[in-house]
Amino acid sequence: MPGDDCWEISHETITTLEKNEILIKAKYLSIDPYMRGRMNEGVSYASPTQLGQPMTGETAGIVIESRSNIYKVGDKVCAHKGWQTHIKAKDTDLALTKIPHESHQLSLYLGTLGMPGRTAYFGLNRVAKPKKGDTLVVSAASGAVGSVVGQLGKIYGCRVIGIAGGPDKCSYVKNTLNFDECIDYKVGDLENELKNSCKDGIDIYFENVGGAITRAIAPLLNKGARVPVCGFISQYNKKDMLSAETPFHVLGALNPKPRHRFFVVHEWVDEFEDATKKLSSMVLNKQILYRETITKGFENAPQALRDVLTGKNFGKQVIEI
Amino acid sequence: MPGDDCWEISHETITTLEKNEILIKAKYLSIDPYMRGRMNEGVSYASPTQLGQPMTGETAGIVIESRSNIYKVGDKVCAHKGWQTHIKAKDTDLALTKIPHESHQLSLYLGTLGMPGRTAYFGLNRVAKPKKGDTLVVSAASGAVGSVVGQLGKIYGCRVIGIAGGPDKCSYVKNTLNFDECIDYKVGDLENELKNSCKDGIDIYFENVGGAITRAIAPLLNKGARVPVCGFISQYNKKDMLSAETPFHVLGALNPKPRHRFFVVHEWVDEFEDATKKLSSMVLNKQILYRETITKGFENAPQALRDVLTGKNFGKQVIEI
Repeated sequence: MPGDDCWEISHETITTLEKNEILIKAKYLSIDPYMRGRMNEGVSYASPTQLGQPMTGETAGIVIESRSNIYKVGDKVCAHKGWQTHIKAKDTDLALTKIPHESHQLSLYLGTLGMPGRTAYFGLNRVAKPKKGDTLVVSAASGAVGSVVGQLGKIYGCRVIGIAGGPDKCSYVKNTLNFDECIDYKVGDLENELKNSCKDGIDIYFENVGGAITRAIAPLLNKGARVPVCGFISQYNKKDMLSAETPFHVLGALNPKPRHRFFVVHEWVDEFEDATKKLSSMVLNKQILYRETITKGFENAPQALRDVLTGKNFGKQVIEI
Repeated sequence: MPGDDCWEISHETITTLEKNEILIKAKYLSIDPYMRGRMNEGVSYASPTQLGQPMTGETAGIVIESRSNIYKVGDKVCAHKGWQTHIKAKDTDLALTKIPHESHQLSLYLGTLGMPGRTAYFGLNRVAKPKKGDTLVVSAASGAVGSVVGQLGKIYGCRVIGIAGGPDKCSYVKNTLNFDECIDYKVGDLENELKNSCKDGIDIYFENVGGAITRAIAPLLNKGARVPVCGFISQYNKKDMLSAETPFHVLGALNPKPRHRFFVVHEWVDEFEDATKKLSSMVLNKQILYRETITKGFENAPQALRDVLTGKNFGKQVIEI
């Protein structure tokens, strides 16, 4: 568990903007479990953060100075530029994403209206292609991706079963998000619970986790079932798949095989704006609900990360800077 | 460039096999550019090799002792267990892949009949789905994946254009592998060369590289073109895509969009055996040719890696142990 001594707050003078640069004042910082992996050498699937550089992470903020034709002062923007209160960047930097002018709180663009929401949207619509009456199971159901997958499924007329850990999360998924069922994988017999909840089998399994849950799902998949593989892979990379059990090992052994495929949300990068708009209107209409844990103070980011790693947060954890 | 002092040969006594374990004598070690990335902290897309542990890599060898019901003495096997002359492993270790009993030299199962060959096979057949008469362009055309992609394309009746670097590689691709054309991206004007070679546009682009080559390909893609995205991504991971230009950024901006998608070969892990068998018979019939650089002596692996990194090898580089 990383102590406060793993970080130090460092002050820098912001230099004058060059042509085509903007200065962003960050309002919210996303805190995510993957960040822990960036603090190790050799244990994570991704490059570690370099010592002396900003800790990896995404913020949502407002342009406060601009020498750009793309962004003007007052524009809102997400920036995948690390834990920083102010961000100076070129306006064509691919780490920036423009936020539409809407009334939502900016923090939402780090979760339900950000990358996690779009991952749910494209994985479900483009890979799973849900039909009315389908039985849809989603793991990590109370999380930023899973909660959107399930609520979209309900909107599309699916029967939606969540899988989550602990009574609070399950109650939230079933009673607040209105999934048809939510199974607590930490108690009892996942396989029998699934059998009871999915009497007509499973048509769509949205894969966020892998391992024992995939193995419990596998025998219940109907002929022609679709399995978008999203989150498991976040723990692995192509080379490491050579020596790890992937969902593909489990699903590929079935007969008939489901239509499973790995996806990355950037396959639809040109449709991000449209997807965000659609999700945004569903949030406005209260068809999609969300939950956030907002901690005030940039200096509390390390504690918020520890909370996320020990499951103390409930819903998307953000820091209000 | 890593010097010899980055490695040391370490001797260990092989302990007695436990139940369900096997002992493999490695015959060939695959040497690949990605290995350099495993030697850095923080620069690679993947976890670095740990100090004191075997350098990451795949070998092909023969079972010389067995207490397993799955492998018997004399069986051939690929093991993604690092630079080792002998490998003791559990017979269910997912890093092991059984090699069929065939007459091919074992080294081939590290290239054309191994993961690179299968990557070509599934990316082309399952993602691109080539039709007779399609124009197929493949980048990194002389490499372990690209050379199989193009030769399969010819077998399926496509017009095949390779892209490679330098006159030797291009001549090999055109004259030995019998691609219709091979464009040297290092000379002249890639865009015009492509335009001249693809007068009917491009139906399939097998993406191994990204960047400037993708940008040159993009305007020539026909309506309904297919783009399996394989290799580019090997330099990135999901999180880093948040701030990098991917082929998806380039392809997604087109109108109409090609059918591009990222794939990982493990999506078809259950069909590996069948694919290997098919590739194997095409190699036997000389429908698929290959080229290897075989260096003798385990102790020469560091030099072979340096050769690969400076482009001295031609064809798949392996060490004969």
